[in-house]
Amino acid sequence: MPDTLLCPRNLAFELYEVLDAEALTQRPRFAEHSRETFDAALGTARSIAEKYFAPHNRKADEHEPRYVDGRAELIEEVKPAVDAFLQAGFLNANRDFDVGGMQLPSLVSQACFAHFQAANAGTTAYPFLTMGAANLIETFGSDDQKRLFLQPMIEGRYFGTMALTEPHAGSSLADIRTRAEPAGDGTYRLKGNKIFISGGDHELSENIVHMVLAKLPDAPPGVKGISLFIVPKYRVNQDASLGPRNDVVLAGLFHKMGWRGTTSAALNFGDQGQCVGYLVGQPHQGLACMFQMMNEARIGVGMGAVMLGYAGYLYSLEYARQRPQGRTPDNKDPHSPAVPIIAHSDVKRMLLAQKAYVEGAFDLGLYAARLFDDTHTAPDTTARTQAQQLLDLLTPVVKSWPSAYCLKANELAIQILGGHGYTREYPVEQYYRDNRLNPIHEGTEGIQSLDLLGRKLAQGGGAGLKLLVRSMAGTCERASHHPNLDALRQPLEQLVNRLQGVTLALLGDLAQGKVAGALANSALYLKAFGHCVIGWRWLEQAIHAEVGLLNGNERDFYLGKLQAARYFLTWELPPCHNDLALLQARDDTCLSMQEGWF
Amino acid sequence: MPDTLLCPRNLAFELYEVLDAEALTQRPRFAEHSRETFDAALGTARSIAEKYFAPHNRKADEHEPRYVDGRAELIEEVKPAVDAFLQAGFLNANRDFDVGGMQLPSLVSQACFAHFQAANAGTTAYPFLTMGAANLIETFGSDDQKRLFLQPMIEGRYFGTMALTEPHAGSSLADIRTRAEPAGDGTYRLKGNKIFISGGDHELSENIVHMVLAKLPDAPPGVKGISLFIVPKYRVNQDASLGPRNDVVLAGLFHKMGWRGTTSAALNFGDQGQCVGYLVGQPHQGLACMFQMMNEARIGVGMGAVMLGYAGYLYSLEYARQRPQGRTPDNKDPHSPAVPIIAHSDVKRMLLAQKAYVEGAFDLGLYAARLFDDTHTAPDTTARTQAQQLLDLLTPVVKSWPSAYCLKANELAIQILGGHGYTREYPVEQYYRDNRLNPIHEGTEGIQSLDLLGRKLAQGGGAGLKLLVRSMAGTCERASHHPNLDALRQPLEQLVNRLQGVTLALLGDLAQGKVAGALANSALYLKAFGHCVIGWRWLEQAIHAEVGLLNGNERDFYLGKLQAARYFLTWELPPCHNDLALLQARDDTCLSMQEGWF
Repeated sequence: MPDTLLCPRNLAFELYEVLDAEALTQRPRFAEHSRETFDAALGTARSIAEKYFAPHNRKADEHEPRYVDGRAELIEEVKPAVDAFLQAGFLNANRDFDVGGMQLPSLVSQACFAHFQAANAGTTAYPFLTMGAANLIETFGSDDQKRLFLQPMIEGRYFGTMALTEPHAGSSLADIRTRAEPAGDGTYRLKGNKIFISGGDHELSENIVHMVLAKLPDAPPGVKGISLFIVPKYRVNQDASLGPRNDVVLAGLFHKMGWRGTTSAALNFGDQGQCVGYLVGQPHQGLACMFQMMNEARIGVGMGAVMLGYAGYLYSLEYARQRPQGRTPDNKDPHSPAVPIIAHSDVKRMLLAQKAYVEGAFDLGLYAARLFDDTHTAPDTTARTQAQQLLDLLTPVVKSWPSAYCLKANELAIQILGGHGYTREYPVEQYYRDNRLNPIHEGTEGIQSLDLLGRKLAQGGGAGLKLLVRSMAGTCERASHHPNLDALRQPLEQLVNRLQGVTLALLGDLAQGKVAGALANSALYLKAFGHCVIGWRWLEQAIHAEVGLLNGNERDFYLGKLQAARYFLTWELPPCHNDLALLQARDDTCLSMQEGWF
Repeated sequence: MPDTLLCPRNLAFELYEVLDAEALTQRPRFAEHSRETFDAALGTARSIAEKYFAPHNRKADEHEPRYVDGRAELIEEVKPAVDAFLQAGFLNANRDFDVGGMQLPSLVSQACFAHFQAANAGTTAYPFLTMGAANLIETFGSDDQKRLFLQPMIEGRYFGTMALTEPHAGSSLADIRTRAEPAGDGTYRLKGNKIFISGGDHELSENIVHMVLAKLPDAPPGVKGISLFIVPKYRVNQDASLGPRNDVVLAGLFHKMGWRGTTSAALNFGDQGQCVGYLVGQPHQGLACMFQMMNEARIGVGMGAVMLGYAGYLYSLEYARQRPQGRTPDNKDPHSPAVPIIAHSDVKRMLLAQKAYVEGAFDLGLYAARLFDDTHTAPDTTARTQAQQLLDLLTPVVKSWPSAYCLKANELAIQILGGHGYTREYPVEQYYRDNRLNPIHEGTEGIQSLDLLGRKLAQGGGAGLKLLVRSMAGTCERASHHPNLDALRQPLEQLVNRLQGVTLALLGDLAQGKVAGALANSALYLKAFGHCVIGWRWLEQAIHAEVGLLNGNERDFYLGKLQAARYFLTWELPPCHNDLALLQARDDTCLSMQEGWF
């Protein structure tokens, strides 16, 4: 059977050649692990994904959750899949052994999780959101909150959500209107409406723990007045038993273009004035807390986008190998047999572009997970701090680049299948529809570009940027020892050099208060910056491919890596010079466009 | 009410400023027409599209045709819409007055038709395919065929299809297996299977006339052995009355990602050996005949792609004007009211890109229609021949460019609406799904790129290319009289110069038989060539905008045109230099990629 979720050889390349997962086993936290235990976890993830998640991916799309008597009804295949996931321990893959976790590095748990994301984006969202909410309570919650809410989440009995968006405010969280009044007993009464709440209702778990952003009566205006609350679907008694329904009402479901397996809910909090909530962390500090969850979620969203792209790539690759059609242009003999379409140069182009996008983004996602491990377990504090700085800087790219380019990969997968790809008889059109959500949720592309250019670059005096540039220079230096890589390295060096200049100039503008002009073309900046990052990761992969070739094994695999690196670095990277030229010139085509001119 | 189909001011700009539709009324064929009669036809098209087509666009998507007892069942709103279209005479918009036609120029009839394409792509396909099939019989059919099949099509009683694709052959028509045996009485018996037949079954008309490609027993191999047949769903007696069902069976329906309103059928011809067909034109000349229909269809597909993009653009524009959210980055006061999102530079970018794509492609589609008029009605033979040469060259671009970039426009429209855009409560996600078909049907992007580079460029000794280059040079020369346009003209001149050099080099390779290498990167060529063409059309629009400004009216409209031209020519055009550099270097990244390396 061909691989349909991800390519195990490529996964091994990433883990054990590029990112050196085995080195992590030298650290105390992972000392009981080894390549064997990593591979065992990966094998389990793969088989559960194949057995429980993949089979109902299409059915969940065709039978989206239904609103019945105030509840969301899912197809029956979702629960056994989620249960198998819980049973195998993936919800607590990173938690300590002594609370029942697997104590895996994030690098490995993300790789495990990737299998579920590839198999079924819709069903995977339920545990994904639960993990994020649990981590949030673990970091910021009180002991009581941990006992009453976190513990049953760890046990897989309660699920979680994040409830941020409101109908009138969208991305502008400063303007949320949901209110939380102190009830006098340490709890709060919430009142407001939230929309697009993924996993906002279902009956997969005994209870649902909504992590809700709301404002206290004395809240200062804007984002500095946002607080974070736990609002359970069912109230929880002090002895941890379930109480009555809380005043949280499922107002309706959204009907999406794709990703239909996940309920997207409109929730009304406190229509009856009886919505009990619990403040998490300090008053007015809710956004900072939520950002922990969002940053994790953004890496997860990026990986989700990668895996939809990856699944489409592998499907179209297999199709291209099997499907005979036409002849190469230098063969005019109509009696000759048709060739598999993979023999056509333009089909190879579409496969190579997909490979470059999905394997480049896959590498970046796992690299980010590796950095996350370093933030907790690197041998010294400096290394931990630096990992955090670099991860903070890269987060908008990890989220947005796969969302844009792995969607493009899905578009190409459809194209390779032609008319068939456009029908619902094949899976690629669903991947495309599912993936179209990723540039929108957890912060749109526009939000990510402002986060990068307007916030992350200057953070810590530009520490993250310096680290990134140093890492890129290190890769280029190592690449320079392989003459075969000169033609791949040079376009990257040229672009990164120019990017540095443009970055300093834009940061200078920002420092001088020229905010509107400096941020006007943030989308161009995000694109060029993201391409540099992915180009760097491809050069890194290319170095390891050269090493692999020198060792003399698996020529085909490594030659494919080199060809994809060449594609990305020479076809996709150089056009970014125009983006940088526009940024350099502070081009105001968009900024100066007037509403009345449209 | 905001415009949702297309912008009437922009249509008037195209017809009466850029493309000088009124000049056509100087020609004998259109002498009875005037701007008033043109506008009356356009107004009728608009009101029928708004009244009968737009209202069931979503319903047709939600209730796709169902296979019931061997027939395709459509929702009931389709027939009244198609009937209103027929009644108003749009099926015969170009035909002579004396056969009941409107004798309109193609320029105007395409503009009329564009309203239906914007309102409802699915329902519009039925008359669209009928028009193509009717034109085919008109050109190549015998008198008897015209009497028995064309006449009832003109009357709107019979509908038409084109049946080319077979399950095993896809784009490779050389390999079709459908056979046609002479029955001895001048008719044929067909046997074979066709798939993806749009409008392949329905009950909108008394009969369906399938234009079928098949091979005669003595057919030479390959495309030179393909013949064209009329195969009616119901046989037709010599007195033009309907006979019994022909042996054409609806084997099933395809379930598509979008464009669901149009049945996509699998048809079995001759399962019982009783499928009667009639040879159209000469034996083995079927592909040449079919190309007439396909060339018309390709322009129609291009315009269809434009109109889906256009509808999405207008919707997202209106949304961006109405939706308050956030503040511009230079305003940090959380007490200030939220601004409409159109005030955000990144939203302006997404609107400007859409405007550049859809109005650029709209101009090109109408320009092609104007050329089509010239092929029939230009004052002298030379002008007619030249119009045909230029139109032939441009056809792959007219088909493929909007299919790629107006789909991109739809992607941006969703992004502007954010989470809402991803739901089926808003129309933009359907436009995106519908438009994804256009890069596939009527010749994929890959087929168009080979048609351009491998066939059209060299046709007639490169006559079309010379005409195009001359037209572009003429536009640049006129633009040079407007100093304001220097920054727009220069990037086009630079790219076109380089394109010419690359083109000659590639044609040289082809002439020397280096076919595989020369065609390996045909996709890059199509993209760069297409961008030059659209860039040229934008410069042409910019000149007319400058003239409009000099006349002192409607500053906003013309300034918007200039800004969109600036966006396209300075943001989108320069990156094509990398494509041309790769072509110049005969880059073999794709060609040399091996199947085993993936």
